[in-house]
Amino acid sequence: MADGGLSFPTSIGTSDETHIRLLGQDLAADLMGKVGFGELAYWLVAGRRPTPGETRVFEAVLVALADHGFTPTAIAARLTYLSAPESIQGALAAGLLGGGSRFLGVTEDCGRFLHETLRDAGPDPDYDAVALDAVRRAREGKRFVPGLGHPVHKTGDPRTPVLLRIAEEEGLKGPHLRLFEAIGRVHPQVLNRTLPLNGAGVCGAALADLGLPVDLLRGFALLARAAGLLGHLAEERRKPLGMDIYLTVDRNAVYEED
Amino acid sequence: MADGGLSFPTSIGTSDETHIRLLGQDLAADLMGKVGFGELAYWLVAGRRPTPGETRVFEAVLVALADHGFTPTAIAARLTYLSAPESIQGALAAGLLGGGSRFLGVTEDCGRFLHETLRDAGPDPDYDAVALDAVRRAREGKRFVPGLGHPVHKTGDPRTPVLLRIAEEEGLKGPHLRLFEAIGRVHPQVLNRTLPLNGAGVCGAALADLGLPVDLLRGFALLARAAGLLGHLAEERRKPLGMDIYLTVDRNAVYEED
Amino acid sequence: MADGGLSFPTSIGTSDETHIRLLGQDLAADLMGKVGFGELAYWLVAGRRPTPGETRVFEAVLVALADHGFTPTAIAARLTYLSAPESIQGALAAGLLGGGSRFLGVTEDCGRFLHETLRDAGPDPDYDAVALDAVRRAREGKRFVPGLGHPVHKTGDPRTPVLLRIAEEEGLKGPHLRLFEAIGRVHPQVLNRTLPLNGAGVCGAALADLGLPVDLLRGFALLARAAGLLGHLAEERRKPLGMDIYLTVDRNAVYEED
Amino acid sequence: MADGGLSFPTSIGTSDETHIRLLGQDLAADLMGKVGFGELAYWLVAGRRPTPGETRVFEAVLVALADHGFTPTAIAARLTYLSAPESIQGALAAGLLGGGSRFLGVTEDCGRFLHETLRDAGPDPDYDAVALDAVRRAREGKRFVPGLGHPVHKTGDPRTPVLLRIAEEEGLKGPHLRLFEAIGRVHPQVLNRTLPLNGAGVCGAALADLGLPVDLLRGFALLARAAGLLGHLAEERRKPLGMDIYLTVDRNAVYEED
Repeated sequence: MADGGLSFPTSIGTSDETHIRLLGQDLAADLMGKVGFGELAYWLVAGRRPTPGETRVFEAVLVALADHGFTPTAIAARLTYLSAPESIQGALAAGLLGGGSRFLGVTEDCGRFLHETLRDAGPDPDYDAVALDAVRRAREGKRFVPGLGHPVHKTGDPRTPVLLRIAEEEGLKGPHLRLFEAIGRVHPQVLNRTLPLNGAGVCGAALADLGLPVDLLRGFALLARAAGLLGHLAEERRKPLGMDIYLTVDRNAVYEED
Repeated sequence: MADGGLSFPTSIGTSDETHIRLLGQDLAADLMGKVGFGELAYWLVAGRRPTPGETRVFEAVLVALADHGFTPTAIAARLTYLSAPESIQGALAAGLLGGGSRFLGVTEDCGRFLHETLRDAGPDPDYDAVALDAVRRAREGKRFVPGLGHPVHKTGDPRTPVLLRIAEEEGLKGPHLRLFEAIGRVHPQVLNRTLPLNGAGVCGAALADLGLPVDLLRGFALLARAAGLLGHLAEERRKPLGMDIYLTVDRNAVYEED
Repeated sequence: MADGGLSFPTSIGTSDETHIRLLGQDLAADLMGKVGFGELAYWLVAGRRPTPGETRVFEAVLVALADHGFTPTAIAARLTYLSAPESIQGALAAGLLGGGSRFLGVTEDCGRFLHETLRDAGPDPDYDAVALDAVRRAREGKRFVPGLGHPVHKTGDPRTPVLLRIAEEEGLKGPHLRLFEAIGRVHPQVLNRTLPLNGAGVCGAALADLGLPVDLLRGFALLARAAGLLGHLAEERRKPLGMDIYLTVDRNAVYEED
Repeated sequence: MADGGLSFPTSIGTSDETHIRLLGQDLAADLMGKVGFGELAYWLVAGRRPTPGETRVFEAVLVALADHGFTPTAIAARLTYLSAPESIQGALAAGLLGGGSRFLGVTEDCGRFLHETLRDAGPDPDYDAVALDAVRRAREGKRFVPGLGHPVHKTGDPRTPVLLRIAEEEGLKGPHLRLFEAIGRVHPQVLNRTLPLNGAGVCGAALADLGLPVDLLRGFALLARAAGLLGHLAEERRKPLGMDIYLTVDRNAVYEED
């Protein structure tokens, strides 16, 4: 605590000449080779080591969110790699910057919606009644219910039942997933049509049931996507598409007066 | 293949109404709950599923590189979160953008150095002789040997022997790690002092032995660091330091003529 | 319009073998050496060429917003340059990513607040009455009035009267600046204390009076800040501070249990 | 200088309760409304106020580099805006991150090439002889001469003669531009074909003649491009293309085995 009393407290990590400590553990002796990477990511954010069941649900979420093909974020990363191949960090960052409200925000939006709905509902709720009320209020406020509907998987997102089953198997199907299932059951009464519970939404519900802070759920979607973007950049390196994508746009540009 | 013959081939993923395919697998049925996140990241970049041993070495590397405390990148991420807390993707991207030549580049530089040295050496090399020659040429060219030396761990980086042991246990100590060890043995003959083999370097050697493309090794350091940065952002949310860091600099600014 | 009818219309620019057209002009013959950079930036966003008076107000705004010393964004840019000096685009991008709601958002927030207040007030308003009502509603809703108050310039931001005078001189003091002035006059009646009209706020009001889209006002703050950040990076190159800033934080890190 | 002797010296800016100083000037009294934005950007980087002639050449460069239509960077910015429309700083940053070696690097590469060639040539050189030697050495080393050739403007880039004329008019055609012209004259002797001197290259030569640091020339290209990217984002807001671009790629994705 030199420098006139300056002090920057942290619970993450420190090191000295012979040891590196991370999360209160000896990095080399206790963590390397003994904890998985997903497990460590959970621990870093939650500040506590997850159980094996929590790790399995968490990694299933990361796997579900890692890639969705040629998303706008994957295309942006490939085009940035085309322009600046010497800076892989720039291409990865450009891809992650699309992780905002529209294409990667559903996970966090859904987790937060469920969290706030449950907070208002009080303990031991009747999930179907709470869900019915929440969907009604969303409709009256002309708001979408996050996690409901999918442009491609119109009759059912294949990730949803699988993640629900995994959470059930691990004894981790908590109030957020239960409320999400209830929304799936009751929304046709209000909306007069049946929409699928989508994969991004069920991931948000599962992360919230793991006790992770709802303000940071988008962060996990970004971590998962970082792996997917690396996959795209590795493929771009082997079989480049960026130039074709760029030329497809540029060759079909048409100037028009504003 | 509509749009006049346009075609963007990819081996990563596709989806239709009922299925999501990733890496040739059914995402929901075959991957979620069955592969770990680190395993999937390896698969995405290498284009092949790693063995359990490869996964263990790979995840040990990611764990080793996830966080190094208050690095410039962690501080940049925290300051960006302070300025724009609504955009966690921006804070994460800002942190990753520091993953360049100086603070996060050693992993890739070391992997590449070993790879090129081995390529020039031909098959079945005498590692000590090759290492001696490589260190001599680096010294003559006034270049550093990547992976040698550490500002804090002057007598030995605790990560290095642990990663070597894990690779040995899994039968994955290949030519890159062997050459790296040889550099550790022979460099005092040339440099007249003994430097430690650092953790970032041994990680680069291990990744290269896993057959991962040396041009993308920095990408794995970035993926690992993404988890560490999320940890810093989660801590910044609970116990903010960004304002203190900013004010420490701003309050001690001194204007001087250029 | 090859590729099966694909067409990407734009009013910005096109080029062929002998000409480059930008905004409907011949770039080389009509723009280079004839329009200033600020003038072009206005034209690009507004889709029309500004008058000399509009350009003067616009450039005064950019000058006012270009730099505020060691802001979190400037520090983040310097730390990123320290880590990845080979990627100046990364350091600049990292700095701009802090241009969010808190430290660079006031310009846009203030422009939008004034815009929406005027829209609700109808034509030919009594500015003091409208301002009084707007401040009252903000207070009742426990919201801040954007553009009011400054942590350092407690008795008056020196930029505010200057920008008001320049706009007046150019005949461009329109309804947004008039309403902003009115807020300055009437807010003490509601808040029981006198706060300064700050520089970021008056810039937002002036940009809105120039007819620029309120959704993009933050974009101009970012453009201005890009110049300031280049100044910091040029200084960092000549007289590096990034390492000192990093070590000041790192040397004063204190590990504590979570 | 509180905090135990900490001191962060800067020549850029400081402020107190009543004044904001920038570059040693009173921002409100001496700069706002009196210096243009381009002029200020030059001053911030060079640390000295440019003359009117220097400002004219400098702004002509920024105007020349501001936009090149649907470049990979413009497309990446539009796709990022599509995904995260709430974070205009993220879309702008994503666009700038493509400002690397390939699509935006020529300006800096050319300035540096000319600078280093002149440094080796000594004072008062015979430009044609120096150029001939430099082109020969580049060819022998199988390196491109930066600034020579253009994929579209095969018979001449329209920006080149205009910028040379403006520099001439302002008495600012110095050694870098003269050497660049000489390269244009002599390269056919070595390469056996005539290539155009491109616009990005002549901009780099002009910036170097203005005495700006060659390590930062890419920074000016980035500043210019920031204005162009804002133009694209403003157009994307009025007439969105991002979704069409994304769907053009995604609908034409073809899965293939690796």
